[in-house]
Amino acid sequence: MSTHKLDISLEQELDALKLEGRAKPTERIIEHYIPPKGNNGPRYKLEGNDNEFIRLNSNSYLSLSNHPDLIDAADKATHKFGVGPGAVRFIDGTFVYHDRLEKKVAAFTNKPAAKIFNSAYTANCGLALSISNKKTHWIGDQLNHNSIIRAMRISSIPKENKGIFKHNDMADLKRCLDEVSPCMERVVVIFDGIFSMRGDYAPINEITKICKSYDSKFKDGVITVVDDSHGIGAYGDTGRGTPEFCNAAPDIIIGTFGKAFGVNGGFICASNSIIESVRQKADTYIYTNPLSVADCAAAIKAIDICDSAQGRQLLCDLQKRTNQFRQGLEGLGKESITGPHPVVPLLVRDTTKTHDLVNYLFNNGVLVVGLTFPVVPKGDETIRFQINACHTFADINHVIELLDQFD
Amino acid sequence: MSTHKLDISLEQELDALKLEGRAKPTERIIEHYIPPKGNNGPRYKLEGNDNEFIRLNSNSYLSLSNHPDLIDAADKATHKFGVGPGAVRFIDGTFVYHDRLEKKVAAFTNKPAAKIFNSAYTANCGLALSISNKKTHWIGDQLNHNSIIRAMRISSIPKENKGIFKHNDMADLKRCLDEVSPCMERVVVIFDGIFSMRGDYAPINEITKICKSYDSKFKDGVITVVDDSHGIGAYGDTGRGTPEFCNAAPDIIIGTFGKAFGVNGGFICASNSIIESVRQKADTYIYTNPLSVADCAAAIKAIDICDSAQGRQLLCDLQKRTNQFRQGLEGLGKESITGPHPVVPLLVRDTTKTHDLVNYLFNNGVLVVGLTFPVVPKGDETIRFQINACHTFADINHVIELLDQFD
Repeated sequence: MSTHKLDISLEQELDALKLEGRAKPTERIIEHYIPPKGNNGPRYKLEGNDNEFIRLNSNSYLSLSNHPDLIDAADKATHKFGVGPGAVRFIDGTFVYHDRLEKKVAAFTNKPAAKIFNSAYTANCGLALSISNKKTHWIGDQLNHNSIIRAMRISSIPKENKGIFKHNDMADLKRCLDEVSPCMERVVVIFDGIFSMRGDYAPINEITKICKSYDSKFKDGVITVVDDSHGIGAYGDTGRGTPEFCNAAPDIIIGTFGKAFGVNGGFICASNSIIESVRQKADTYIYTNPLSVADCAAAIKAIDICDSAQGRQLLCDLQKRTNQFRQGLEGLGKESITGPHPVVPLLVRDTTKTHDLVNYLFNNGVLVVGLTFPVVPKGDETIRFQINACHTFADINHVIELLDQFD
Repeated sequence: MSTHKLDISLEQELDALKLEGRAKPTERIIEHYIPPKGNNGPRYKLEGNDNEFIRLNSNSYLSLSNHPDLIDAADKATHKFGVGPGAVRFIDGTFVYHDRLEKKVAAFTNKPAAKIFNSAYTANCGLALSISNKKTHWIGDQLNHNSIIRAMRISSIPKENKGIFKHNDMADLKRCLDEVSPCMERVVVIFDGIFSMRGDYAPINEITKICKSYDSKFKDGVITVVDDSHGIGAYGDTGRGTPEFCNAAPDIIIGTFGKAFGVNGGFICASNSIIESVRQKADTYIYTNPLSVADCAAAIKAIDICDSAQGRQLLCDLQKRTNQFRQGLEGLGKESITGPHPVVPLLVRDTTKTHDLVNYLFNNGVLVVGLTFPVVPKGDETIRFQINACHTFADINHVIELLDQFD
């Protein structure tokens, strides 16, 4: 057999993506990690390139990925139990580290119970598979992450059981709630905590208040779900994420161990009944190996650190560097979206200039992400900067200087 | 907010699952791994239980999870790059280990290219998202794994673009191919290599022959896809899996690093154009962190071992122990499904007896999985035994003796 005919068609489809400007460039390959030294934060070397790069495109907001305690925890767990679980959870693929991490993250988010997944992506899919029935209506923010949109597909939510509200628009959320058919019994309102391309946050307090006012209309109520992947660990006074920042308590918290916590994997935290439903019904939990014990042990350590004086210091460093960068942008008269999150967008509002600036920064040793149409609307072309706790004052200063010299 | 009303409804749904016999029991928690010693293979200790258990329910067919070289490879990679990638692949989350593992598994399966995923589950979802368009028709074996069924959902394949053939029934596959609408341009025939509940295999040689005879009817041809998660590493003279066993070359090979290779993660191996389409279009690849470098380094080592004299010896040990167990069952006059795979089903054909036998084995230090209605049809109640290369002659003998004493 040969896929020759398919290959030709696929190449045409790929050419079309390129023409539309939607094709992703070749992946760069990280070959070396260089630990912080003196005034320099961490640096990275790429295959085929002699320069050292500052990363302003990493989600590891607290810079925990290379923390010696996490590495040590991962090593110890691997030596104790090996590199892979060898089974799915319900067929004796559950090791003490899985159980401990679930208890740890549940306590951290102040929920009765938790289930862990290989990623927040499969956690979102798993939640939809677990709590949805034919009389469930889903309402989401228009800028929700791809995994929430795919979660609706994988669990076969029909079009008429879905509503989308304009980004962070509470009047439009009310419209969606008003439009739910009275024969529905369960309404789920789901939204990102932090919107990854903009660094702004969902007004969870307002959302929960509005949802509460509709709760009595539906047999099983109106349930609020936040995917706080970019918030957990990095946001709020104690790193509890966007709910803490908003002083709100959404019903279900989904998140990742792969951003501020520096590891990998996702989670759902909620009531005991919801979590037991996840265990019984979430195919993306049931029919796949869980995280390695190394990932779990490192994530447990990450939460412990986040919840200690050391973690408060990291959060404080992160906030300082974020403020420094935001103020630097402001000083240059650059347009951004205000807010305290370490995702800092620079609105360039021009495709060519965005590409040029990304290339200029790359050529000067800075890794960032440019967002152009159709990822963002035409005119909203943006460069996304992500600040990490291990960036130094000098690092941020250097990047601001580079931006100053570009114009 | 509270989920009290939802909790009550979910508890009713959970009660219904229990009544139907479909609820999964509480997860057991592995607390200790005890390495092989003398005549004993590895043993496991469970939380709240003083016994030591033999696992006959692990997918780690070559017993590589605890191999010192894999543990060492994982440790070294973690020390070099940290515990988490901190980004998705296309935003500089690609490390040398990801790239090397993709080249390694592509070469191992004799395909031009590969992409790795967090699991074979998300690999199946990713493939469907990448190669399907409105004129693509999918045909699958009725016993295909849950991840293939969910892959059809997540990529919104409409009902009329899908066909299901009776398990391993080639006449019925032809019927499905005959029934494809002539306005379709692309047909994908997808099947498990090894069927995980039965240990039997897809006759890939016959399938590819049949598909070839229909290839000219469709613009992009008829594409064959095997999910060889239970075959790769464990099956065929050199561990290449079910295609090697069948002397066949399916177009696309999906598999896992989490079973015979003893680690975690999944892969797709195929032509360059298909893999580039996966990179550009598979949301479950694009929008989620990749595997940790530790997982990648361990998987690279696992493939190296599998492809060495040591690996041949492990395969030989696995085959010996599988034969010993299968002959032991036969000697006791037990019913099984013949074949050389280390998944060995014991057909009990009675629900109560299946539960009793599983409990009896548990009480005697043996972990196995019982399959009852509705997981298998009524009358097909089965216990699944999985043989690993590190099981000793004495281990297998002991289990056969226990089975003999049960009746």
